[in-house]
Amino acid sequence: MPRITFITIGSELLRGRIVNTNATEVALCLRRYGFALDRVLSIADDRAAIQAAVTAERAQAELVLISGGLGPTRDDITKHALAELTGCPLRWDEGLREQLAARYAARGRELNPLTAQQALVPEGWTVLPNAIGTAPGLSWRQDGSWLVAMPGVPFELLHIVEHELIPRLQQAFPAEAFAQRVIRLHGITESAAASRMEQLEADLLAGLEVSYLPRHDGLWIELGGRLGGVEAPHTLESASRAVADLFADTCYARSDAPVAALFLDACRGRGLTLAVAESLTGGQVAASLVQISGASEVFRGSVTAYDPAVKVQLLEVPAHWIQDPGVVSAPVAEAMAEGVRRLLGADIGLATTGLAEPDGDRPAQAWIGYADARGRGSEHTYLRYPRTVNITRLAQQALIFALKKVQEQS
Amino acid sequence: MPRITFITIGSELLRGRIVNTNATEVALCLRRYGFALDRVLSIADDRAAIQAAVTAERAQAELVLISGGLGPTRDDITKHALAELTGCPLRWDEGLREQLAARYAARGRELNPLTAQQALVPEGWTVLPNAIGTAPGLSWRQDGSWLVAMPGVPFELLHIVEHELIPRLQQAFPAEAFAQRVIRLHGITESAAASRMEQLEADLLAGLEVSYLPRHDGLWIELGGRLGGVEAPHTLESASRAVADLFADTCYARSDAPVAALFLDACRGRGLTLAVAESLTGGQVAASLVQISGASEVFRGSVTAYDPAVKVQLLEVPAHWIQDPGVVSAPVAEAMAEGVRRLLGADIGLATTGLAEPDGDRPAQAWIGYADARGRGSEHTYLRYPRTVNITRLAQQALIFALKKVQEQS
Repeated sequence: MPRITFITIGSELLRGRIVNTNATEVALCLRRYGFALDRVLSIADDRAAIQAAVTAERAQAELVLISGGLGPTRDDITKHALAELTGCPLRWDEGLREQLAARYAARGRELNPLTAQQALVPEGWTVLPNAIGTAPGLSWRQDGSWLVAMPGVPFELLHIVEHELIPRLQQAFPAEAFAQRVIRLHGITESAAASRMEQLEADLLAGLEVSYLPRHDGLWIELGGRLGGVEAPHTLESASRAVADLFADTCYARSDAPVAALFLDACRGRGLTLAVAESLTGGQVAASLVQISGASEVFRGSVTAYDPAVKVQLLEVPAHWIQDPGVVSAPVAEAMAEGVRRLLGADIGLATTGLAEPDGDRPAQAWIGYADARGRGSEHTYLRYPRTVNITRLAQQALIFALKKVQEQS
Repeated sequence: MPRITFITIGSELLRGRIVNTNATEVALCLRRYGFALDRVLSIADDRAAIQAAVTAERAQAELVLISGGLGPTRDDITKHALAELTGCPLRWDEGLREQLAARYAARGRELNPLTAQQALVPEGWTVLPNAIGTAPGLSWRQDGSWLVAMPGVPFELLHIVEHELIPRLQQAFPAEAFAQRVIRLHGITESAAASRMEQLEADLLAGLEVSYLPRHDGLWIELGGRLGGVEAPHTLESASRAVADLFADTCYARSDAPVAALFLDACRGRGLTLAVAESLTGGQVAASLVQISGASEVFRGSVTAYDPAVKVQLLEVPAHWIQDPGVVSAPVAEAMAEGVRRLLGADIGLATTGLAEPDGDRPAQAWIGYADARGRGSEHTYLRYPRTVNITRLAQQALIFALKKVQEQS
């Protein structure tokens, strides 16, 4: 396998103005095809920095991917820096210029001079077409060194990686067998899980890469490795089952799909529909469901009852419960779940209520309420993180709680 | 200013399992105090890779920050790699061990042997206390080289950066004057904005760093630089005003606060309350409001009317409108806004409806509806990105639309 460095260029990354999701998405895409990133490096839109970084990374990786700084504005200098570094002066690519002009014309617009500069290409570099944007990818191979520059716009980058880079990569480096499995737990700490795994790691899992990944949706245990040959998937599958058995009390999935997708699948398989009532999570449970294409088969809608009056008026929580037992209580959570289930005519109601931040001497905490034709249930949790993290984690926990309830229905 | 590299260690970063938000947050925190990251590097939990990376980065940066791999599990090897690299064998820090045991005891739990290893410290390194987690930060300075290792858990990392690292950094490198301004536009492309800016960049903005940052909430133009002395804020302020004037048609803010915070502030200042009805955005408008502490003064609640029946039943959209003009229309968007405003008794109603993905030959598109005591309004937009991006962008656009409507009320 080639060693691969991914250089993400952009001063905004170093200033904290954007999160480097490109690194995540490119890593996931490469992995699907059996390739892996060795290093990810972020540097500024600075000619010297770009040239120094590319030179150093070329010395230790067969392939250097570069993204960002291919736009039309003054601060985009990647192409110029690479042209100079490889001694390939920029030349007009007339075919590319015509394509750009034609695409603009089709939208009834004229190609402006700034955008036209996207058709300037370093001599000897190969153009990797960008069907969904104006900046093409650029590839250059020489003496065992391979540079690929791509735009930093996330979906343009991924489009070029998927459609242009991967096929070339597969041709250059036929991929070895590669497999991985994820076992997902909720309600156990990383160190407690690792302690329980000690025997298994020394025994059945020897030779596999085992990693622990605490996430907002619980603890992921990832098993992986290049085992070679046909036995890899089998070995990993039985290892994965052994780990799931060891954590029968806390395991909620063996898949890397989002919790919302797992939950929607579980409901769809049973012909169940869902309505959500959110207080603490304020819409995030609903929003995470709607992220999943096809959510509308299961998800009817939701009410964000941020104001306590909305809980009473719309969700039919008894008015006197707002004071006693109070909105942060099991009865209110369960009543909200039952209320929204009836209001929107769904099979399942799911609700959240609580304090996203400590309030005086009351710690941040929440109740998750659940209701279906069989009755009501709830779960309490303390929230130990900053406000926005607490909200995100509780939205995930609510869906995991509901997933378990649905799974019980067999 | 010291050159600073931030090495984020974790195979999960290279496998695309997590997004490197630590780099973003540390960059923002350093910036607040006038420091800047020069490089961010992600590498695997691998002894040789860690040692090679630290050695190479030390050669070009006065300060190397390192995060991750300080946990208690087998794949956490950062401390061991650094101890070996600097020739400092691990020793028990008895004070630290006692503190850990005491904290566990206070929660009624016993310190397990794995976690106890957090009290193993390389000889000669300084412990940077971690008040909110078990892995302490570790600092080592010698011969103009400074290494600081910190846990990868985001809020623990930030806690140590803010409370332990920054004070030491300020002492070692008294910070120079530093200032920046952001001008935010919506409804203009990067290249169109850059074209319009040409004269200003050559003239008034010469000597400033000007960068263009296309984001989900529009285009940010960022002005910045180390101008030195007392004139910096003044120069930047007048430059920022000039840019805002140039884009009077598309500028919606000169601040780096989230759109939701800008909108809540605008409402709070005018004593207005808000209710939201979401179809396409499915809860994300509400969720982004609730992220902001104190949202409850303005935000009454929301309805996610994902099923068209909910639009009719709860929001009083006339039933025959579902077919004609159809749910993706200005009248339905406006009726949803008015319906939720009445349902939840708020001053303002804001609604989204549309197609997050193309449906047959209908392109992805949306209507934003707005209603207040003065009447109704709406805005149409085509959505050109993948589903989840379209949802996120539309949620931002809806809040920007509402912000402008509220600002009109003066």
